[in-house]
Amino acid sequence: MIIVRLGGGEKINLDYVCQDFALLVKKEKAILIHGANFKRNEIAQKLGNPTKTVTMASGLPSVYTDERGIEIFLMTYPGLMNKKIVAKLQALKVNAVGLCGIDGKIWEGERKDKILIIENGKQKILSGNFGGKVKKINSKLINLLLKEGFIPVISSPALSNEGEIINVDNDLATAKMVEEMKIKKIIFLLDQPGLLKDPKDSLSIISKIKKEEIEKYFEFAQGRMKKKILAIKMMIEAGAEKIYIGDGRIKNPIQKVLKGRGTIIY
Amino acid sequence: MIIVRLGGGEKINLDYVCQDFALLVKKEKAILIHGANFKRNEIAQKLGNPTKTVTMASGLPSVYTDERGIEIFLMTYPGLMNKKIVAKLQALKVNAVGLCGIDGKIWEGERKDKILIIENGKQKILSGNFGGKVKKINSKLINLLLKEGFIPVISSPALSNEGEIINVDNDLATAKMVEEMKIKKIIFLLDQPGLLKDPKDSLSIISKIKKEEIEKYFEFAQGRMKKKILAIKMMIEAGAEKIYIGDGRIKNPIQKVLKGRGTIIY
Repeated sequence: MIIVRLGGGEKINLDYVCQDFALLVKKEKAILIHGANFKRNEIAQKLGNPTKTVTMASGLPSVYTDERGIEIFLMTYPGLMNKKIVAKLQALKVNAVGLCGIDGKIWEGERKDKILIIENGKQKILSGNFGGKVKKINSKLINLLLKEGFIPVISSPALSNEGEIINVDNDLATAKMVEEMKIKKIIFLLDQPGLLKDPKDSLSIISKIKKEEIEKYFEFAQGRMKKKILAIKMMIEAGAEKIYIGDGRIKNPIQKVLKGRGTIIY
Repeated sequence: MIIVRLGGGEKINLDYVCQDFALLVKKEKAILIHGANFKRNEIAQKLGNPTKTVTMASGLPSVYTDERGIEIFLMTYPGLMNKKIVAKLQALKVNAVGLCGIDGKIWEGERKDKILIIENGKQKILSGNFGGKVKKINSKLINLLLKEGFIPVISSPALSNEGEIINVDNDLATAKMVEEMKIKKIIFLLDQPGLLKDPKDSLSIISKIKKEEIEKYFEFAQGRMKKKILAIKMMIEAGAEKIYIGDGRIKNPIQKVLKGRGTIIY
């Protein structure tokens, strides 16, 4: 069993990814977990509600999501992007089923109404946030689908204990799933060729990282990559054996990263 | 087994509907099929791509859906509206799973790229339409979910034979499901109190209609109601025993229509 974690970047080639994923599921059970970051920001902008990215007190970037933000989230993640991917897979004869964390309450989380952020060097509390963290995976639905030959295609958001829709980080949620479902292999497909030493230099790919040394690479990561490294660390602690970071813009991205094009954490 | 077909009108009270639906599923198996018409039009307007409603050569109203229209459809039907309903039901301890016709290819259809419309009294062909009709129901996924205690919440769009996403009429698709799954009871919840003799007079409710007389009522229906009557006719031909049309704006709309508040076709 393998999880493919597809980023939501602008340059991801959905056709290439879906074609290669269709080949993968012929050989082994797989789940696709995707983002829709670029699309969300684009639609949010057009609707006059631009995405509010903040820097948490921890230094990690995060999105502050108000009620309007959650609506745009629903439109673009489980709506536009999820169903586009499912349709592409169905057209390739993969019996895909699109879900978000709310369906069958597969991602159960805790809402963080108030967040502590840094703005202009000062700490500040923002309230009214519909964001949070996945705390529990209810895998019954996913296992049922996989057993009957359906391929789950999953995205944020999740459901809070109080029944609210919450924006959660897809990478950290994926790490929770790796833990709960004892997944050994994970493939990240991003709109960059792998983990880079210098984010501005696409040739500076770090091709191999030993699992026990992952923490060292936290320093190379910038912005959203920091969260990915954190998620990878959680996956390793949960027993993942091999984690790949490949290029979601090229043909056969899954086959290529499995053959060594990109980064492998082993 | 019962299908609740919830309209997508502006004044539908989702909380009232979900509360009553949660009571219903304690007593019998049920599926919720919903629209999102009002929300779709609102978002389409805001995004500068207003919904194009046309009059078909048959006299029935329809929506012409171009590629941009399909994207807005995905955002609002399986995205915003579907997941809002699923979250409300989950908060009420109903283990709902949101799906659209593409997921597990439950609604398989035929795309009608070119449509014959009437504009200013003249016939005209419009091409580039991503609309069509559901021709086949693949009920495996729905049956599987119901068997395991999950409650399917379903909306358009469907998938064409060629793997394209197509906008299909929810009522006619519901009729296809009634046929395929041999459903005997269907409840329509709309933003009006039932089938009206005079659409402008909310007191002119037709409370009882004999199944064999449904065709007579086609004349009372206007606009989108015409398609509903057509769908009801198909349901009757497929063996449906009782069809209710109730008010989706009031408290306990399901209990009330079952007790006679609204229209019953029997």
